[in-house]
Amino acid sequence: MNRSVIALLYGPDQPGLVAKVAGWIHHRGGNVLHADQHLDRQENVFFQRVEWEPSASRTPEDESALFKEMATVELGMSVRMALSNDRPKVAIMVSTADHCFHDLVLRVRAGEWNADFAGVLSNHDSLSEVSDSYGLPFRSFAVTKEGKPEAERAQVEWLREQKVELLILARYMQILTKEFLEQVGCPVINIHHSFLPSFAGAKPYHQAYKRGVKLIGATAHYVTEDLDEGPIIGQDVARVSHRHGPKDLIEKGRDLEKLVLSTAVRRHLQNRVLVYRNKTVVFD
Amino acid sequence: MNRSVIALLYGPDQPGLVAKVAGWIHHRGGNVLHADQHLDRQENVFFQRVEWEPSASRTPEDESALFKEMATVELGMSVRMALSNDRPKVAIMVSTADHCFHDLVLRVRAGEWNADFAGVLSNHDSLSEVSDSYGLPFRSFAVTKEGKPEAERAQVEWLREQKVELLILARYMQILTKEFLEQVGCPVINIHHSFLPSFAGAKPYHQAYKRGVKLIGATAHYVTEDLDEGPIIGQDVARVSHRHGPKDLIEKGRDLEKLVLSTAVRRHLQNRVLVYRNKTVVFD
Amino acid sequence: MNRSVIALLYGPDQPGLVAKVAGWIHHRGGNVLHADQHLDRQENVFFQRVEWEPSASRTPEDESALFKEMATVELGMSVRMALSNDRPKVAIMVSTADHCFHDLVLRVRAGEWNADFAGVLSNHDSLSEVSDSYGLPFRSFAVTKEGKPEAERAQVEWLREQKVELLILARYMQILTKEFLEQVGCPVINIHHSFLPSFAGAKPYHQAYKRGVKLIGATAHYVTEDLDEGPIIGQDVARVSHRHGPKDLIEKGRDLEKLVLSTAVRRHLQNRVLVYRNKTVVFD
Amino acid sequence: MNRSVIALLYGPDQPGLVAKVAGWIHHRGGNVLHADQHLDRQENVFFQRVEWEPSASRTPEDESALFKEMATVELGMSVRMALSNDRPKVAIMVSTADHCFHDLVLRVRAGEWNADFAGVLSNHDSLSEVSDSYGLPFRSFAVTKEGKPEAERAQVEWLREQKVELLILARYMQILTKEFLEQVGCPVINIHHSFLPSFAGAKPYHQAYKRGVKLIGATAHYVTEDLDEGPIIGQDVARVSHRHGPKDLIEKGRDLEKLVLSTAVRRHLQNRVLVYRNKTVVFD
Repeated sequence: MNRSVIALLYGPDQPGLVAKVAGWIHHRGGNVLHADQHLDRQENVFFQRVEWEPSASRTPEDESALFKEMATVELGMSVRMALSNDRPKVAIMVSTADHCFHDLVLRVRAGEWNADFAGVLSNHDSLSEVSDSYGLPFRSFAVTKEGKPEAERAQVEWLREQKVELLILARYMQILTKEFLEQVGCPVINIHHSFLPSFAGAKPYHQAYKRGVKLIGATAHYVTEDLDEGPIIGQDVARVSHRHGPKDLIEKGRDLEKLVLSTAVRRHLQNRVLVYRNKTVVFD
Repeated sequence: MNRSVIALLYGPDQPGLVAKVAGWIHHRGGNVLHADQHLDRQENVFFQRVEWEPSASRTPEDESALFKEMATVELGMSVRMALSNDRPKVAIMVSTADHCFHDLVLRVRAGEWNADFAGVLSNHDSLSEVSDSYGLPFRSFAVTKEGKPEAERAQVEWLREQKVELLILARYMQILTKEFLEQVGCPVINIHHSFLPSFAGAKPYHQAYKRGVKLIGATAHYVTEDLDEGPIIGQDVARVSHRHGPKDLIEKGRDLEKLVLSTAVRRHLQNRVLVYRNKTVVFD
Repeated sequence: MNRSVIALLYGPDQPGLVAKVAGWIHHRGGNVLHADQHLDRQENVFFQRVEWEPSASRTPEDESALFKEMATVELGMSVRMALSNDRPKVAIMVSTADHCFHDLVLRVRAGEWNADFAGVLSNHDSLSEVSDSYGLPFRSFAVTKEGKPEAERAQVEWLREQKVELLILARYMQILTKEFLEQVGCPVINIHHSFLPSFAGAKPYHQAYKRGVKLIGATAHYVTEDLDEGPIIGQDVARVSHRHGPKDLIEKGRDLEKLVLSTAVRRHLQNRVLVYRNKTVVFD
Repeated sequence: MNRSVIALLYGPDQPGLVAKVAGWIHHRGGNVLHADQHLDRQENVFFQRVEWEPSASRTPEDESALFKEMATVELGMSVRMALSNDRPKVAIMVSTADHCFHDLVLRVRAGEWNADFAGVLSNHDSLSEVSDSYGLPFRSFAVTKEGKPEAERAQVEWLREQKVELLILARYMQILTKEFLEQVGCPVINIHHSFLPSFAGAKPYHQAYKRGVKLIGATAHYVTEDLDEGPIIGQDVARVSHRHGPKDLIEKGRDLEKLVLSTAVRRHLQNRVLVYRNKTVVFD
């Protein structure tokens, strides 16, 4: 299969947007493979994901640069471009829980996603050995109260050196500061172990047990400086009953967390997610 | 099928409870049809639902009364008794939305549940005619701010006169006061149109839309004086996306509300629900 | 909201289809509201649903006719057109089970769909009275073995007289012959009470019970002359256990059947379904 | 926590069974932790799972042996006994697909189940290295048409030598013969990659794609000599659409297969599954 170009764009709606985008591609000899659009009628904002094979006479890189310029200047859109064979570098932050960690690593090894792991960051040493066994660089940073700013600076420095394009918090139990998020220079996806906005904050399974809910949930979202308030990418739930104590909820929740986090990462890596006003448009 | 006796009991755990209950039934010639138990190890509380056919030489009514005395006095349990052919009287409170109303009435008419409708109470007149067409008594009570105490007194009076044993709030849009709940003399089941504890209070679908959740939910619960905080009987969710505006969520939610409310009512009418410390044990 | 035009089209893929469709609409002053496309790479077939508001200077009727001609002649596509305010006439065929019947009628009355009921056809009299109470014409046709051809001719005649555009089999327990389907002149949607292709044919819940499945299902599909083999529009399942006998499966299945059938009908009435090679493309 | 005794029993129903079992335990000073029973009224067969802590004055081993004798001789039941701290030896058979393999191994390593892996059997060498990395003995057996009887004899010999108590087919692509099943001396659980009885046999995802189903499924079942016809332990489904080709179904199905197989294995290892007339009773 030839390499294709993917554009994600959004901006104020205007007549003829679909025609202009499709026309630009067609007149240059490209062939549209997929095109999804969404019109938010309340906000009058247009969203589109379009994927096409450029004419054989042009490189995808050139096509991508020219489209971006056209869509930005002529259409007034915010634009993100990608190529179908991009392999972004991804880093994982973990603490001691390892179920999401194994799940993500095995998916990349199985070839489910186009991505390469830059390495693993942790505030503990416990996953050092297993990271080694996967051949993944492992860096631990002791995060004490006083030492947090320094630890975060070192983390950001490493992530930028490695040119990481996506950071995944795979049950990382530290809160990232506003400074970290401003400087890290790439999106950060977190898995929260509840059906947000229910049970934000600490120990959500214990909160869920106490409230006596009949379903537990997990939520994958982009991280913003407001804890557990970032744009939601995906959510799912599992049925529980009075027979499940907090320990059972934690165990049952692990499967949910793996599935919800990996689904969100897949959507992000396939360039299917647009963020607007703290919500997501997911072209799935 | 012969009539059977159902006992719901709970209390402090003690050795031999299962044997004592089963032994009592067996020695009097009864035959256990179902027996479910649950032990809350954190609270050391034992819960049981047991259903049996008494010996042909005893009436279910006598068997029930004697079992209740034994379980209360000898075992120190809180006990609720029912007979398999009980047909409790049920009342519905509605405002203007009619989807749960139709759903509940049609289920009773289809013979899904052992129950009879005493009638319909409303703070509007809009469902008067359709109640008539179902042959159901309809009473409307204008609930103004000043007139609420008086309206509630009249409602309670009617419910007690009719000997209503279960009151269902089928999208009733008024908050019942503490006084109403103390005096009504029967359990009250409500359907809340969100996945509690998310989006308690007013306009939950609009809250859900604003937060950008990817699943909407509905929750059936017993009503307590703390709004939307009562013991949860059942919950379910449905998938939504960026394509759904508030109006779509409301429409999609209607099917969810019908299913969750009717499931909760069925469990209650089949005597499968025990309440303890603001949570439910549902023997399903 | 102004009236919009909806086109459903499919045919051999060719370069520039998206651009040509969007360009045609834009150059005539129309504004695209939604556009979904799908490319079946195995078959090299292109599918599209596009909805747009025509320029104020043109009627939707004219716009629709001109688009159809262009898409058929110039693009070589198979095309179906609709207007957003169309209210097709729908008929229901029933036997004795009434849960899907009530569900469909109440949805139309609640304004969930743009459609009007032409009436109810049955091979029994049992739903005559309740059809009357809804104000729906009811026609019963005794379907004996010898009389079937004649009964079907009368049914077809009635459906054609009424200009019915969609026929819904709401648990109609007779098999429609090839002749009926050829002559009825409109699509026919059936609800089968199993997860097809499992348990095609008679008594699917009994088959499911016998096999000991842990989920029961329901399937909505277009009717073809091969029984239970038509293109599937939608399916869903519900969890069951060893505690459920055939009667419980039947009761539990009713909610599933209502939901799956009504979802399929909604998709059809919103012109979201394309049929190709005995499968459906559902733009949802 | 003290060690507890678990009994799984079934047999012809008779008055007083629940009382006799509970009474026996109580009179010897035991304390019932869980008791679930089920009465199949069509077959008049009684099923029970009961778990209890014996009196401190008796070993769980003795208690177990005595209960088994009583339930067999006095109650006429078929009985299977287990202790809560049993760690049965489990073996896995694999071919080349490794997703279920990793999932199972990681769950055992995470301590989710009380079980130890005896090793991995395969008809290929491809998972040899990764088995080594997990520290698991790996045995490969080339299974040619002529050599199959000999290969199976060697496999059975190895399984019996290792005293394997559960054999899991984690996407093993060979059919086990009647002779293998008769001689292996332990239950065998298989994961079939469809919603049985739909799409039994080879290439179920391709069959599903061809039929145009809207949900794909996975089924875990005990293996019998009738291919894909054994008693079903668990099933689940995932939503698919026209956008999913066979390759997408295969990828999406992997998560389903992992979840359904691991859930079935957990239920088996927790002694929650009884088999009767090619169906299962799962006390969950």
